Amino acid sequence: MSEAMFQQVGLIAKTEDERVCEALRGLVAYLESRGLAYTVENACARVLPEGSLPAADRQTLVADCDLIIVVGGDGTLLGAARSVVGEDVRLLGINLGRLGFLTDVSRHEMTERLDDVFAGQFQEEERCLLHAVLMRDARELVHDDALNDVVVHKWRVARLITLDTYVDGTFVNTQRSDGLIVSTPTGSTAYAISGGGPILHPALNAVVLVPICPHTLSNRPIVVDADSRVEIVLSDGQGASGQLTCDGQTEHELVDGDRIVVTKRARGVRLIHPVGYDYYGTLRTKLHWGREL
Amino acid sequence: MSEAMFQQVGLIAKTEDERVCEALRGLVAYLESRGLAYTVENACARVLPEGSLPAADRQTLVADCDLIIVVGGDGTLLGAARSVVGEDVRLLGINLGRLGFLTDVSRHEMTERLDDVFAGQFQEEERCLLHAVLMRDARELVHDDALNDVVVHKWRVARLITLDTYVDGTFVNTQRSDGLIVSTPTGSTAYAISGGGPILHPALNAVVLVPICPHTLSNRPIVVDADSRVEIVLSDGQGASGQLTCDGQTEHELVDGDRIVVTKRARGVRLIHPVGYDYYGTLRTKLHWGREL
Amino acid sequence: MSEAMFQQVGLIAKTEDERVCEALRGLVAYLESRGLAYTVENACARVLPEGSLPAADRQTLVADCDLIIVVGGDGTLLGAARSVVGEDVRLLGINLGRLGFLTDVSRHEMTERLDDVFAGQFQEEERCLLHAVLMRDARELVHDDALNDVVVHKWRVARLITLDTYVDGTFVNTQRSDGLIVSTPTGSTAYAISGGGPILHPALNAVVLVPICPHTLSNRPIVVDADSRVEIVLSDGQGASGQLTCDGQTEHELVDGDRIVVTKRARGVRLIHPVGYDYYGTLRTKLHWGREL
Amino acid sequence: MSEAMFQQVGLIAKTEDERVCEALRGLVAYLESRGLAYTVENACARVLPEGSLPAADRQTLVADCDLIIVVGGDGTLLGAARSVVGEDVRLLGINLGRLGFLTDVSRHEMTERLDDVFAGQFQEEERCLLHAVLMRDARELVHDDALNDVVVHKWRVARLITLDTYVDGTFVNTQRSDGLIVSTPTGSTAYAISGGGPILHPALNAVVLVPICPHTLSNRPIVVDADSRVEIVLSDGQGASGQLTCDGQTEHELVDGDRIVVTKRARGVRLIHPVGYDYYGTLRTKLHWGREL
Repeated sequence: MSEAMFQQVGLIAKTEDERVCEALRGLVAYLESRGLAYTVENACARVLPEGSLPAADRQTLVADCDLIIVVGGDGTLLGAARSVVGEDVRLLGINLGRLGFLTDVSRHEMTERLDDVFAGQFQEEERCLLHAVLMRDARELVHDDALNDVVVHKWRVARLITLDTYVDGTFVNTQRSDGLIVSTPTGSTAYAISGGGPILHPALNAVVLVPICPHTLSNRPIVVDADSRVEIVLSDGQGASGQLTCDGQTEHELVDGDRIVVTKRARGVRLIHPVGYDYYGTLRTKLHWGREL
Repeated sequence: MSEAMFQQVGLIAKTEDERVCEALRGLVAYLESRGLAYTVENACARVLPEGSLPAADRQTLVADCDLIIVVGGDGTLLGAARSVVGEDVRLLGINLGRLGFLTDVSRHEMTERLDDVFAGQFQEEERCLLHAVLMRDARELVHDDALNDVVVHKWRVARLITLDTYVDGTFVNTQRSDGLIVSTPTGSTAYAISGGGPILHPALNAVVLVPICPHTLSNRPIVVDADSRVEIVLSDGQGASGQLTCDGQTEHELVDGDRIVVTKRARGVRLIHPVGYDYYGTLRTKLHWGREL
Repeated sequence: MSEAMFQQVGLIAKTEDERVCEALRGLVAYLESRGLAYTVENACARVLPEGSLPAADRQTLVADCDLIIVVGGDGTLLGAARSVVGEDVRLLGINLGRLGFLTDVSRHEMTERLDDVFAGQFQEEERCLLHAVLMRDARELVHDDALNDVVVHKWRVARLITLDTYVDGTFVNTQRSDGLIVSTPTGSTAYAISGGGPILHPALNAVVLVPICPHTLSNRPIVVDADSRVEIVLSDGQGASGQLTCDGQTEHELVDGDRIVVTKRARGVRLIHPVGYDYYGTLRTKLHWGREL
Repeated sequence: MSEAMFQQVGLIAKTEDERVCEALRGLVAYLESRGLAYTVENACARVLPEGSLPAADRQTLVADCDLIIVVGGDGTLLGAARSVVGEDVRLLGINLGRLGFLTDVSRHEMTERLDDVFAGQFQEEERCLLHAVLMRDARELVHDDALNDVVVHKWRVARLITLDTYVDGTFVNTQRSDGLIVSTPTGSTAYAISGGGPILHPALNAVVLVPICPHTLSNRPIVVDADSRVEIVLSDGQGASGQLTCDGQTEHELVDGDRIVVTKRARGVRLIHPVGYDYYGTLRTKLHWGREL
């Protein structure tokens, strides 16, 4: 893939981080020095008061660009990923602080890494995206997407909720718990791991169902094919209320009887990594595997 | 201890359970046949339409009786226990369905077991009670009690909350998690075990702090002396809201900066068990230890 | 698939189980009544003293038959599976006691289920088989196979061993632990689950690496593509001794520096299930998911 | 407690560590400069070739000294602790590398910390010691001690072993597992935590029983009073062999039917910490609690 592929570069950033201005200025200078066309998201333009930069709202930006550089943390990239669903665009994450799982370029080395990328020296991988539909009384009430996880959890109740799970139409189990996480490989190192889930390698076409504080001690995370249709029914029968959360970023209230259907999007999110990207190396760093007791 | 010690028997029941009327009628007949003075809680009197039973509200009942028979499940006994704090009274639990950890007399054998109890053949044990104080701006806003657990957890937020924990004034750690359970030995087989906590033998003078879905993988349950002063501060700094829940039954909203102080009540709850009560036997039954894969 | 496909039926059994004779007699009578050709393993012939049954050693039997009925428990079927590697044969498991994950036909219903099978009414699935090679000083010292798991563990030492793991030539981590389990989906409900591993649906083309009592608390099970090449090096540097175990049935001693290479066999084991086989139903039964605290 | 209490200081060290000579020389010079009587263990004398230091074997040394300075890591201190059982002596640990749970003085600050200690500025705590007796055919075959843990585990077998556990004569459960750890609070951050056990605060008079890879998923660590009599019977009935290990340092082979009785020593090990010792601070450092994903 050659530089010519990236006709238009978009910039999205975590504008509430105070380190972002300097990083954005550096990026803009870099892109201009290379003569690359670019657009910054309106929010970015507002934190760079000096200038009349080419700016657009996010929807326009993701439609017009073929490479989006996301400046912030993993949360920023999650939000960007959820806004590019269905678009033919690649994402590259630059971290303002410690490297993340998704934003794996440091701002201190960003120009060197971008030199590589625009010279065609990069790795591209497609990360699975989940699509969640909330069904109530046979109506599709909500559609949402997740790069990390779709979570059904209790809400405004101290006691457990009751969930029935089905995979491809087959009943799996009824559980009483605080909730259930449906996680992609990308999300397996996020909330799912705190709930006791395994790590799924990103190349795996799988999702993992992780119960949150299940009442039955033998309930365990289950890994199933990502092409499965996972259905979760809030079946408390006692008027329980729950919540559907995607990537910890969007929330939808649930009532007893609601059915959440989770499937894989035909097309995932395309991430770009610098040459030398090492997933296991990131795991070792983030999980502190080198540090023994 | 002789029969004469029980001058006045109180009856508390889970009145919304349809099996309760028959059990209560049996109990009333039994107590009358033995010539024992008794009082039923007003709620019980209402579900027994046939008669003018001696009835009282709960507060009067727990003040006047020296033995309270609780008919229902473990949840019913938890509620009763929280209402007898400070009173000189014993509790005996009769289960309407499967035996519980706390309600360990079956309704089918209740007359035989009561014969034993009134003949002085029983075991008595004192279970530790926790006292929680919610402090806001140096004011003691809420006082509450728990036989199982005091739980501080996120509330109306999908993201994690930040909690600082201190034991006897010494800083323990800052955690980002879904919440933190402070559990007695009694509660160690309830919510705490779903969160990955250990079982604490009831005779142990200890509490266990169990993090709920902690973000740091090496965070583990810690068992400390029950006479410790445990303090938990909601220290998010971002306006997080949380919830304080005692025994899963009472709830109090928390705001950023709130401090929850948990100590042990000087006097616990006195449970009466039939002769032959076997804690480990109950564990084996309830946790299905006989069943291997 | 029609009955005609099964030209020759083989019988393998757990001959040390006292219930096996009756089951074998029933099977032989059934097969003769249907006029089906069959061979019993020599060991089976020995426990059926009455007769001159057509018998053969296991190697001949698996080469000659196209359906092998295994009578015993999951362990018996594991052993049978490891002996049919490379053969064009199907396995059907009949359990002498409680139903297993692999031996899912009860001896009490075996004739009805076999009627279905020979009428072509059955489900067939291929279960992944692992191949382990033990390399020492660049020599391939041992070859072995596993339907459940390949386990590298400490041996004759109380202290931990040090293992380096690589996936497809990329370094994953160095761990100090009691050992490491490489488990198929089939094995995910066996030893791996005791070590804290997730359940993998059998249709998943994946293996899970489960550390046994790892010294680093953040070490977690990792699920990777089953087509990966997993390498584990005993790298203690202090003369540690270890053990390589396949399916808990075959054992090979390891010395410091040994390298174990685990790959997937091109062809798995073909299991036959009666119509109505329900993997999740088996999970619920075996893991007692219906039983809450 | 005044300096006068320490009449005779003993030095024990991990002599196979190359950094030990410099630390020992520094200690000897320090003790001589203060005019304190001291004895070095013979093994230490051998690695300090320069001189005729007052030396003794360990048994003599622990009998004659009232303060023993242990130079090495936690393993060195464990070994020292097991050799001072029954002696009226205190232990102070100096770490050659990273600080340990037990050796909490850095060699770089050792003279400052010793100034404090000999000025009477220190904390003393008594850590619980376990005593294990191996009984075979009603004979007491082996007596051993443990500061961390008594472990009964499988040995030279790939398959699980069967253990029956009793506490104070009451049957707890039968488990099939890789083994069972009986851990003190001190040991709760060692092997027990790798097996999923909780942390026990050192001041707690409790032990925790942690099953290793138990076959029953609902089997959990249990914390009981340290004054309990814990009995573990290897009850396989199939000629299983096991191993009894104390502190990971001493090993004794077990045969089917062997009974291991674990009780608390009347007197524990007395550890001396510099002023400012902070147990929770050590936990945070050793468990990397500050590091989030």
